[in-house]
Amino acid sequence: MTGTTPAPFTADDYGARMERAARSAADAGLAGLLVAPGPDLVWLTGYAPTAVTERLTLLVLAPGRDPVLVVPTLEAPDAGQAAGAPALTLRDWTDGQDPYAVTAGLLDARGRFGVSDNAWAMHLLGLQRTLPGTSYASLTDALPMLRAVKDAAELDLLAAAGAAADQAFEEIRTVPFAGRRESDVGHDLAALLRRFGHSQVDFTIVGSGPNGANPHHEVGDRVIQDGDMVVLDFGGLKDGYGSDTTRTVHVGEPTDEERRVHDVVRAAQEAGFRAVRPGAACQEVDRAARAVIADAGYGPYFIHRTGHGIGVTTHEPPYMIEGEEQPLVPGMCFSVEPGIYLPGRFGVRIEDIVTVTRDGGRRLNNTTREMVIVG
Amino acid sequence: MTGTTPAPFTADDYGARMERAARSAADAGLAGLLVAPGPDLVWLTGYAPTAVTERLTLLVLAPGRDPVLVVPTLEAPDAGQAAGAPALTLRDWTDGQDPYAVTAGLLDARGRFGVSDNAWAMHLLGLQRTLPGTSYASLTDALPMLRAVKDAAELDLLAAAGAAADQAFEEIRTVPFAGRRESDVGHDLAALLRRFGHSQVDFTIVGSGPNGANPHHEVGDRVIQDGDMVVLDFGGLKDGYGSDTTRTVHVGEPTDEERRVHDVVRAAQEAGFRAVRPGAACQEVDRAARAVIADAGYGPYFIHRTGHGIGVTTHEPPYMIEGEEQPLVPGMCFSVEPGIYLPGRFGVRIEDIVTVTRDGGRRLNNTTREMVIVG
Repeated sequence: MTGTTPAPFTADDYGARMERAARSAADAGLAGLLVAPGPDLVWLTGYAPTAVTERLTLLVLAPGRDPVLVVPTLEAPDAGQAAGAPALTLRDWTDGQDPYAVTAGLLDARGRFGVSDNAWAMHLLGLQRTLPGTSYASLTDALPMLRAVKDAAELDLLAAAGAAADQAFEEIRTVPFAGRRESDVGHDLAALLRRFGHSQVDFTIVGSGPNGANPHHEVGDRVIQDGDMVVLDFGGLKDGYGSDTTRTVHVGEPTDEERRVHDVVRAAQEAGFRAVRPGAACQEVDRAARAVIADAGYGPYFIHRTGHGIGVTTHEPPYMIEGEEQPLVPGMCFSVEPGIYLPGRFGVRIEDIVTVTRDGGRRLNNTTREMVIVG
Repeated sequence: MTGTTPAPFTADDYGARMERAARSAADAGLAGLLVAPGPDLVWLTGYAPTAVTERLTLLVLAPGRDPVLVVPTLEAPDAGQAAGAPALTLRDWTDGQDPYAVTAGLLDARGRFGVSDNAWAMHLLGLQRTLPGTSYASLTDALPMLRAVKDAAELDLLAAAGAAADQAFEEIRTVPFAGRRESDVGHDLAALLRRFGHSQVDFTIVGSGPNGANPHHEVGDRVIQDGDMVVLDFGGLKDGYGSDTTRTVHVGEPTDEERRVHDVVRAAQEAGFRAVRPGAACQEVDRAARAVIADAGYGPYFIHRTGHGIGVTTHEPPYMIEGEEQPLVPGMCFSVEPGIYLPGRFGVRIEDIVTVTRDGGRRLNNTTREMVIVG
């Protein structure tokens, strides 16, 4: 197996991304970008090492120079098979060589560089030690929107991942809930995501009854009861791009209060969606959804941001949160997922992935947002 | 599911490890250790977050102070359920707060700290920005032997993982090889490791014929042929502790040369094993194995180090490599895995995990090291 993603991009596509990234770096006053294995490297080169180890792999992008991938000799054959490899030069190093010295030879010794958020601290320390005149900023601080605007092929892949997640929901709503453990339903959900083409399942949250009131709850051993509200939040990667959707279902007939809370969240989700348009600030999406919940008297029970970006990962910038003034741009993709969490009782969350279009937003999840009754 | 490991350690065990680590830090002239999610955190606290995200989780160990785990509020309930949680204080922070300021309040503003190799660069940059008077060294540079000496319970877990890997080998040698793809045999191996109790499979290398001559090859689509030498290198985690073993099998009758190469590697592995004793330097294990291969005329074809440590990960210090003068200590566990790689033709590697005893070494893998003929 090679460490390549199955996404249908060519070396030219990756070359164009690397060139655009280097130009953005220059615009931000950086001497270059240092990209470690992870989503940025996948997005820029199509390369994902089979394992991330203590051995340095680092893509060096500097404005006006050809991209260079520093890579352990043992891993060079794999790296050379990545779809983006023809658009870069491999610079391999062997055990016993100092990989930081190798990398330093490619860098402006007094430059400021953007470095992948998730690059290992030991590698950053190695570079700081080798080139004490350099300075660094995390890529999220320096270029938060590097991967935020998706091209047409990426949007197709995100839409396909969303459609697969929708298929998984249409199936899961038909399985028995009452009397089974959350973890059983979670396993079903993971199997469905895989059946509908996901190669990686990132989360299958099944929050039944009081567990639904903890937005970070994943799945537990709790046996789902008749009368439970159940939050289902699931996603992962299909062909290298992410899905993430939430529906809240009910086992048997809901109470009036449960219906009311669900209606409020549904209206809030709709309001957030309607706030999506080019030029609107991210925080306006959050404000629109939050206002509906606050107006209904549930403000203190909406305890997280309204959304996050999605692409080659299931959580990335831009964030739909108060204080984020980044304007929306056509091609951005993110979740709109307000919720109400009543401690010790139940929670409701509804989430779609939305992409910004020229004149508004388009949902990539299209199952009903009405409360679905399960058995 | 909580983010705890199943290993049978108590809060007292974790407390003792944290205290010992803080003392080692002081001995090394450090003001403390900063431990990010990953193997060090698992080993020190039993805590593994369900996902490693951009939100800071960091264990602060300072000599003479109680351990503090900085953790996002949403994840604090999970962290509080870790087996080591009673031995530390949780300090949670919420979205909108600056986690580096929270952490800085726990640190000597002019101290030098050991930081996990795999801590995210963005977190290290956040700390460097918040406390410009601090300095940092990677844990592997500062305290390479932090987790190297295993206690009795850890040795039992490593032995159990090794025994499970041995069971997997006894089964895989009975399956058909000829006419099947490497990836099929790899899937069988992964399934067997799981059947015998592994919760995580880290690698299942199946290197047939010429693919065996690339020690980094994993599995490919190559169809295994009658007459192939096949390198099988597989391992993962069982109950939180690692296995890693290699046997090289042959499809049908080997040639005289294939027998000779296999005999040389077997003798080299035996020599490496016999060099294991308290006080011997790591490099002596490498030298002993390498001498056998060099004497047989295959020196240029043994292109990697002889071994690596194993514990809560499948690759960690100490390394059996020329230049490593670290003396062996009873309780250390590592691989002894010489190999010969004949480019374009075939490879042979034989690997056992070995633990240092009071008077020598003890193997944790015990399947035959004779060449096994498969069908």
